[in-house]
Amino acid sequence: MQTWDAITSRRNVRSFSDRPISREHLDQILEAGRRAPSSQNTQPWGFVVVTDRAQLRDLSTVWVGAKHVSSSAATIALVISDDPEPGRRVQFDLGQATMIMMIAAADLGIGSGHAGVGDQAAANRLLGLPAGRTCSFLIALGYPSGRPLAPISKPDRKPFDEVVHWGTW
Amino acid sequence: MQTWDAITSRRNVRSFSDRPISREHLDQILEAGRRAPSSQNTQPWGFVVVTDRAQLRDLSTVWVGAKHVSSSAATIALVISDDPEPGRRVQFDLGQATMIMMIAAADLGIGSGHAGVGDQAAANRLLGLPAGRTCSFLIALGYPSGRPLAPISKPDRKPFDEVVHWGTW
Repeated sequence: MQTWDAITSRRNVRSFSDRPISREHLDQILEAGRRAPSSQNTQPWGFVVVTDRAQLRDLSTVWVGAKHVSSSAATIALVISDDPEPGRRVQFDLGQATMIMMIAAADLGIGSGHAGVGDQAAANRLLGLPAGRTCSFLIALGYPSGRPLAPISKPDRKPFDEVVHWGTW
Repeated sequence: MQTWDAITSRRNVRSFSDRPISREHLDQILEAGRRAPSSQNTQPWGFVVVTDRAQLRDLSTVWVGAKHVSSSAATIALVISDDPEPGRRVQFDLGQATMIMMIAAADLGIGSGHAGVGDQAAANRLLGLPAGRTCSFLIALGYPSGRPLAPISKPDRKPFDEVVHWGTW
């Protein structure tokens, strides 16, 4: 798919079909994430991929906004050190990794919908995380159950001229 | 360009040629940023685009890691509310907006290199920001002065199997 089509087709998908994602395509999405830039190239993340239905159902309970994880074909958990010190940059970097994976998914016709984590202890336990690591975000993936991904001409966003300023604010 | 080529071609570029970026291409990069997802669709950003050489030189002094802004064809300043409360999610969202703009740039053969801000007061003054807003990041853009963007087969990253875990950590 052309890049611009992938960028403009990406939307939050939270209702997934039963169609599984091939290992090859999962690998490609994860490879995009691995390539994401990060502050000082620290790559402060690990990605835990969950495809087991029972585990997905359990994982969907860690936040009220994570229900769609239950019916995803796969969910990628973004895991970071639970050292709160780096904070700001790590969150920025997680945003970069998330975005590049969502675009890589859209390129394959795969929808994505990310979610935060409320019950941190449960998420960490379900993912078998060692001490010192914590799950920061979940990216649920799957083929949309309804309309397939397609370029969106009028996204639900503020007008261009309200967001963009030239020279000075 | 195909999406996978744009994803794998993107690298940090800090040395730019004299070639300007057309307004059409700048608009396309900014439009990608406008479309970035954000928590609750809050779109907590404004983008200030700087192309004036003197202003770029001044802006390049706001952080030791921002020197390359000086020779960029254009730099996009990401501006947020200076209310520290939303913090974590806003930084994640800024990471998403940055990544989608850098991929949109790579798709056009345009390199990008982002930078943080050290001297916040100077950055805010140079961008003419009103009270209550602050510049969080700078994305310098331009055509690479050396080798053009091209897919990178072996990026400087941790091995795939070190980053990716299946099922549990």
